[in-house]
Amino acid sequence: MIFRQLFDAESSTYTYLIADPASRQALLIDPVLEQTERDLTLVQELGLKLTHVMETHVHADHVTASGQLRERTRCQVVAGAGGASCANVHAKHGDEVHVGALTFQVLATPGHTDDSVSYLLGDRVFTGDALLVRGTGRTDFQNGNAGQLYDSITQVLFALPDETLVYPGHDYKGRTVTSIDEEKRFNPRLAGKDRAAFIQLMDGLNLAPPKMIDIAVPANRACGLTSSAPQA
Amino acid sequence: MIFRQLFDAESSTYTYLIADPASRQALLIDPVLEQTERDLTLVQELGLKLTHVMETHVHADHVTASGQLRERTRCQVVAGAGGASCANVHAKHGDEVHVGALTFQVLATPGHTDDSVSYLLGDRVFTGDALLVRGTGRTDFQNGNAGQLYDSITQVLFALPDETLVYPGHDYKGRTVTSIDEEKRFNPRLAGKDRAAFIQLMDGLNLAPPKMIDIAVPANRACGLTSSAPQA
Repeated sequence: MIFRQLFDAESSTYTYLIADPASRQALLIDPVLEQTERDLTLVQELGLKLTHVMETHVHADHVTASGQLRERTRCQVVAGAGGASCANVHAKHGDEVHVGALTFQVLATPGHTDDSVSYLLGDRVFTGDALLVRGTGRTDFQNGNAGQLYDSITQVLFALPDETLVYPGHDYKGRTVTSIDEEKRFNPRLAGKDRAAFIQLMDGLNLAPPKMIDIAVPANRACGLTSSAPQA
Repeated sequence: MIFRQLFDAESSTYTYLIADPASRQALLIDPVLEQTERDLTLVQELGLKLTHVMETHVHADHVTASGQLRERTRCQVVAGAGGASCANVHAKHGDEVHVGALTFQVLATPGHTDDSVSYLLGDRVFTGDALLVRGTGRTDFQNGNAGQLYDSITQVLFALPDETLVYPGHDYKGRTVTSIDEEKRFNPRLAGKDRAAFIQLMDGLNLAPPKMIDIAVPANRACGLTSSAPQA
């Protein structure tokens, strides 16, 4: 498998380029509009064909590159059921996405937003903002729900094997990956906390709104292709 | 193998935590002083024993955590021959560093600085600032030498198998890894350029000095433990 983790420093977003080396079919998870040229250059240099963009949710902190990438490569855009209306595929829990010989299993992991999904590929899971390194996504906008997030993490993600590598949608301290085992034991929002304690913690965070939310959410519902979206 | 790539956003430096899962012995390559608590927390959470810090060179853009880590864990500090005088081990080309069951081969790769080394571990090479993703370290201070860097890259690093993964000391565009094959084909400072053209290019860069050089270089010669070094 070809695997590249990529970082957008402005929004601290991780994008993942993954490809099947035999067929050269490739996908990007959560691409960022401003990084379109970087990512397409890498796809081209590695001799890959971009067939899919997979979104973990409608983002509030950056604008997706999915629409531009679809226009330029004719790839399919995959989102969770209830996710961006512009997507070609709205995937439900239990669905599979095939990219060459690679099979991604779709896990519904709502709570940060109501459309949040994670993608499982073998021993790696891409959790978007549901589960972060020693943290979780917030639950105070876009139909976020702390109880639902607790259930998604503890019943869906923590049901994966302990050694599963967790690749998050963001990190703000330079960490690139974690594991299910580590998050069970060391995630300060979850370890030793029951559902009620988690809800109380999340409801008390009192975070400022993401600075890009008013631009990013409507833009991302249209795959980043609105007149008000920034241009790459 | 336990493998974690870590990023310091202030200096765009990559640090690597690598461990042998059986013996739990671990090393850090190029740790950054300000990230000492993050890195030691991760070592502790993963149940590891830090036995080595390995420096790729005397850095000019950040202060190393090696001295603090040695004081707190009694680890050994490894540097290249001619590198920081505070190191416990000055490794020469062809030397090996053993960390549990892991064997690192030392490759002398001078040119960015005269003490620069790379560390080869199986199909991964940690190149410090000798070879970066689509770039190289600069050669205009600390006894840097463009011709020597050209020779280090083309005769030592490019002699590794094409599929070898190259983990750099920095990246400024969010890329985390590359390969020998990619850099042979797509590195704009090297692809299609002979030694004379590389020297001419490097000698014409006219870069501003690194803003931390006057603090970082003397501090790093003392493993970050000078009175003028920033405190973690």
